[in-house]
Amino acid sequence: METPRNPYLTVDIIIEIEDENGEQGVVMIERKNPPYGWALPGGFVDYGESLEAAAVREAKEETSLEVELIRQFHAYSDPGRDERQHNVTVVFIARPLGGALEAHDDARRAGVFSENSLPPEIAFDHADILSDYFSRKY
Amino acid sequence: METPRNPYLTVDIIIEIEDENGEQGVVMIERKNPPYGWALPGGFVDYGESLEAAAVREAKEETSLEVELIRQFHAYSDPGRDERQHNVTVVFIARPLGGALEAHDDARRAGVFSENSLPPEIAFDHADILSDYFSRKY
Repeated sequence: METPRNPYLTVDIIIEIEDENGEQGVVMIERKNPPYGWALPGGFVDYGESLEAAAVREAKEETSLEVELIRQFHAYSDPGRDERQHNVTVVFIARPLGGALEAHDDARRAGVFSENSLPPEIAFDHADILSDYFSRKY
Repeated sequence: METPRNPYLTVDIIIEIEDENGEQGVVMIERKNPPYGWALPGGFVDYGESLEAAAVREAKEETSLEVELIRQFHAYSDPGRDERQHNVTVVFIARPLGGALEAHDDARRAGVFSENSLPPEIAFDHADILSDYFSRKY
């Protein structure tokens, strides 16, 4: 079958969790590789892997958390959203089932942030995604 | 950057339209190529093209309709949903802005179908997608 050059497919996960003060927040990781900054945990979907399986796997790999998906949030596909190449992401909302938050894999650090305490440097379009999330756009 | 083998990215479009009896339905096309049967209009996303642009383009190419997107519906990614290869689809809901429904490109025929008048042979997982749509699952 004809398969023209295709954008790359990724997932990102908004993990809803309480911070150390008991305030509701989301998990973000500080990236070990460029583009630097903080980002939602996420990564590439493997061939033969569903989006849902990729989201659970990437959450675990980068944050050490076992998560349960609550729902799909939205897909973001602007060709300029990732400066490296055309990466399309499907974003999920999830909750932790177990494990302790700890950075791994591509993540240097992991933290919990609320709408009013977001880190200053946010990579990709993840500031826009979080703005959509906090404003309940989708 | 590391880019492992990725699923292919497609879009499908649920175009809400009235049939000739004034009843609300959705546009489906009869496929010219295997797998045969009726399907939602859709196709591959080009590198550098947003999902939204791909949805408007594919709707036009296969149905001759100019459409306006209402919203993203849901992404479907089961590795077995397309027997040919692992194709992930992001489904949109749209309304026609202009043009007359007429099959083109990969479509042999085009028609308007309501929940109770769906064609017997539906390709891919589009019967499941339409079931989710008619039951307002997402």
